[in-house]
Amino acid sequence: FGLSCFSGLSGLSPPSAPAFHRESGLGKSTLINSLFLTDLYSPEYPGPSHRIKKTVQVEQSKVLIKEGGVQLLLTIVDTPGFGDAVDNSNCWQPVIDHIDSKFEDYLNAESRVNRRQMPDSRVHCCLYFIAPSGHGLKPLDIEFMKRLHEKVNIIPLIAKADTLTPEECQQFKKQIMREIQEHKIKIYEFPETDDEEESKLVKKIKDRLPLAVVGSNTIIEVNGKRVRGRQYPWGVAEVENGEHCDFTILRNMLIRTHMQDLKDVTNNVHYENYRSRKLAAVTYNGVDNNKNKGQLTK
Amino acid sequence: FGLSCFSGLSGLSPPSAPAFHRESGLGKSTLINSLFLTDLYSPEYPGPSHRIKKTVQVEQSKVLIKEGGVQLLLTIVDTPGFGDAVDNSNCWQPVIDHIDSKFEDYLNAESRVNRRQMPDSRVHCCLYFIAPSGHGLKPLDIEFMKRLHEKVNIIPLIAKADTLTPEECQQFKKQIMREIQEHKIKIYEFPETDDEEESKLVKKIKDRLPLAVVGSNTIIEVNGKRVRGRQYPWGVAEVENGEHCDFTILRNMLIRTHMQDLKDVTNNVHYENYRSRKLAAVTYNGVDNNKNKGQLTK
Repeated sequence: FGLSCFSGLSGLSPPSAPAFHRESGLGKSTLINSLFLTDLYSPEYPGPSHRIKKTVQVEQSKVLIKEGGVQLLLTIVDTPGFGDAVDNSNCWQPVIDHIDSKFEDYLNAESRVNRRQMPDSRVHCCLYFIAPSGHGLKPLDIEFMKRLHEKVNIIPLIAKADTLTPEECQQFKKQIMREIQEHKIKIYEFPETDDEEESKLVKKIKDRLPLAVVGSNTIIEVNGKRVRGRQYPWGVAEVENGEHCDFTILRNMLIRTHMQDLKDVTNNVHYENYRSRKLAAVTYNGVDNNKNKGQLTK
Repeated sequence: FGLSCFSGLSGLSPPSAPAFHRESGLGKSTLINSLFLTDLYSPEYPGPSHRIKKTVQVEQSKVLIKEGGVQLLLTIVDTPGFGDAVDNSNCWQPVIDHIDSKFEDYLNAESRVNRRQMPDSRVHCCLYFIAPSGHGLKPLDIEFMKRLHEKVNIIPLIAKADTLTPEECQQFKKQIMREIQEHKIKIYEFPETDDEEESKLVKKIKDRLPLAVVGSNTIIEVNGKRVRGRQYPWGVAEVENGEHCDFTILRNMLIRTHMQDLKDVTNNVHYENYRSRKLAAVTYNGVDNNKNKGQLTK
């Protein structure tokens, strides 16, 4: 895994980095812009929460980013308004449908005679934004992650982490990890490795989960250095300062060190699960038992 | 109105200052502690969101505060978990029931022969915490305020305002006020006055609505001064610094300048509305039409 494999993708790979989130106003659009140094969302093309209101929809956009001289086509899936409604029952359904439909596309492509041109638009990673409440997960967070964790690699993030003091953030992280374990939520598992340096890196990331992030595309001058950050009356919260948040860790992990593993796990675990469920469903006389459940069970 | 009337309450008045809020983690308990310089919530007796989970309940606590040598008994009503559930339909009902039940108590006391000892436990003010999303009101915010605005004085607050840069805060305030008008939500109206100084003060408060607040009970030393604030790696957000947030304005308004008016409006408008609805409902032959609606309408 890692950077070498990533460079080996020879210019164009389409990993999906969907950002599903808990609710509007967690700074998701800003973070996506910061992560990929793009202007996916701008005043001319504002983030979903500024465009569409009150419905959960799945939106796709594509970004071409350059990393170490290699071009990379990223598909970003977004769910404006998720969790904003008064009744949020089943608000995860559009997301599940989206993930399944991408698996379906891939399965169909795999079954074709000519398999040379197989576009992989499967969802490789789900950034789940947790509101920086300081009070642990909400029922909707738990419900959402449990619905999704068998289908996609979930990486939990603490949104707008510049709301939390370092002590609060530390405690909040611990509590979230405790709750994730208690509720048997399976988040993306960073792979074990024999390489000592890689192993250290993985430990460092794991210790910091969920990653606390701050997004900003405003350039501010701090002590003569130009940094991306948020200018408060009491100081500047710097996006890429490791003492201020885990943004850099997330960025490196996503587009450098762990991109290949995210793709591998998607292919070998999540996609295989999908495929075997799907195939199991069409065994009996070619009839799709899934669709006719209840009518056909003897 | 104002300080004089307040002092005139001779030591013990029980205005209720309930803090209903949008969801857990908006710093409500901390703000209440900061406002009244109490330890209503402490590690030994944590805020509601740490004690009870996942249900909307109405909790009451009483605080004795001293202000300008005068003792004041405040009742604080809290609604842990409001808006946290997956389905939040009707989550305002416990709050409405609480307000109505206090009106009912007062009405009963008024109807008694001996009216000397009339405890006033009516709810005089509702601090509504809006999440600092930067994206305006959510459907639940609008719904909640519309259900409540005929029953209680609503003062909208932006919770945890240290998440917003001054520019974001300014824009967010404008947008919220625009949405409040669009949806015809009636928030507490600060009274007009002929006194020039008071008039200036009222204008200043009105221009800053919704009030952006930051709560903290941590004392931090900043440039040799000891202040209440939140210590971030990039600086200290000071609770009582007018350039950092509107905390001081809220505090003064609540327990000094506008307490009496909040009580007056409660008595003359909200309570009278309640009373006349109640009396109208029992006109027909002493039968409570409200309770038997649908069976008794001719």
